[in-house]
Amino acid sequence: MTKAPSTADTLADTVQVLAFDIFGTVVDWHGSIVREMQTQHPSVDGDAFARALRAGYQPAMARVMAGEQGWTLIDDLHRGILEEILPRFGLAHLSEAERHHLNRVWHRLDAWADSVEGLQRLKTRFTITTLSNGNIGLLTNMAKRAGLPWDCVLSAEVFKAYKPAPATYLGVAKVFDLAPQQVALVAAHHDDLAAARACGLRTVYIERPLEFGAQHIKDVTPQPGNDLHCANLVALAQALGC
Amino acid sequence: MTKAPSTADTLADTVQVLAFDIFGTVVDWHGSIVREMQTQHPSVDGDAFARALRAGYQPAMARVMAGEQGWTLIDDLHRGILEEILPRFGLAHLSEAERHHLNRVWHRLDAWADSVEGLQRLKTRFTITTLSNGNIGLLTNMAKRAGLPWDCVLSAEVFKAYKPAPATYLGVAKVFDLAPQQVALVAAHHDDLAAARACGLRTVYIERPLEFGAQHIKDVTPQPGNDLHCANLVALAQALGC
Repeated sequence: MTKAPSTADTLADTVQVLAFDIFGTVVDWHGSIVREMQTQHPSVDGDAFARALRAGYQPAMARVMAGEQGWTLIDDLHRGILEEILPRFGLAHLSEAERHHLNRVWHRLDAWADSVEGLQRLKTRFTITTLSNGNIGLLTNMAKRAGLPWDCVLSAEVFKAYKPAPATYLGVAKVFDLAPQQVALVAAHHDDLAAARACGLRTVYIERPLEFGAQHIKDVTPQPGNDLHCANLVALAQALGC
Repeated sequence: MTKAPSTADTLADTVQVLAFDIFGTVVDWHGSIVREMQTQHPSVDGDAFARALRAGYQPAMARVMAGEQGWTLIDDLHRGILEEILPRFGLAHLSEAERHHLNRVWHRLDAWADSVEGLQRLKTRFTITTLSNGNIGLLTNMAKRAGLPWDCVLSAEVFKAYKPAPATYLGVAKVFDLAPQQVALVAAHHDDLAAARACGLRTVYIERPLEFGAQHIKDVTPQPGNDLHCANLVALAQALGC
């Protein structure tokens, strides 16, 4: 499902850089964590565990952005959340090495089935970069394992600010010496897209109804304001003539 | 020409990330600028022009690192140097658009003939990243044009310090949560390698006798201290079993 070709054509003519949200948009964090738990810790409810891990993410970033703690990489925020929820899931006995390994599950997330093909096609015409709150090392390890062909790995770590801070969206435009409207944010989250739009970026919504798993289908009804609304990254490539 | 296999084997077993110097090591700045001048401004002595542009580079970075001016992207330092030398080469008449375009020649540098194949092979076994004083946008545009398959684009811009500041070399290790000896710097410049070695990184010297052009052959005699000394990036891939 895409908007009228004219919008896609305008976008394809104006935009030079596509910046991608990662967790949920390009990779399937929920399914990947569920699979990891099934293999490594089968007694745990993987769905509940994945959602509990993810639920700690926004509050942890908010504490950093409020100045309650200094700049912190997502790897370290993830570790703090993990420590908090382990006892609740009967995993208080895990060793330091096991905790470290489990925390790195975020480096081992699988791509959605369409992501690699979609990105390869989009890369032929646009500069494709990450724009994630995940740290550079995490994003690079993930890309190498999943085959995500980024031209560039941009992260909150580069701008020392998490999305939705304007410094992140405007930071991408500045890195490439472009006007904000020459950059499009591609994301499966309306709040991320709204913040990018407020900075002058173009926006593309990607439907990921299964982001929270098959038991918690996400409403992906189109919302006004986005330049494009696509089912997935292959559909986006097609809409943009790649 | 490589050291004994045992050194290469040790390196291949220890190192996870290869960080590459760019200007001179991976791309041929002198030859590319000479070719650009031959096409665009044939009346100018391209060899002298290229060397004059490059000669302004270290002093400009030194002024930033000494605190005489705030953090500045290489694109802007390059522009300052360009402005300074244009009259000397009879190019004072260039328009703003022409100056901007000429300054972006650094985004359009050609790779040495072995670079793409060498990097592709090295990428199968190591994480390969830039570690350049060039800014992220410059490095990304260059890579896209020249087909350099980086896993990650690290730059002085990320660390807000230019090489040879320790923050750059140690910054790579920190980004990937590795010990310094798990990172190797690959460069055609002994001062860069010495600074990396002082931070605990492994080092690989690449011979680029033509870095300053065929009229100014560079001495590439092996110097002590480097873990490997290779003729080019394909030779490095071979030495490391890729």
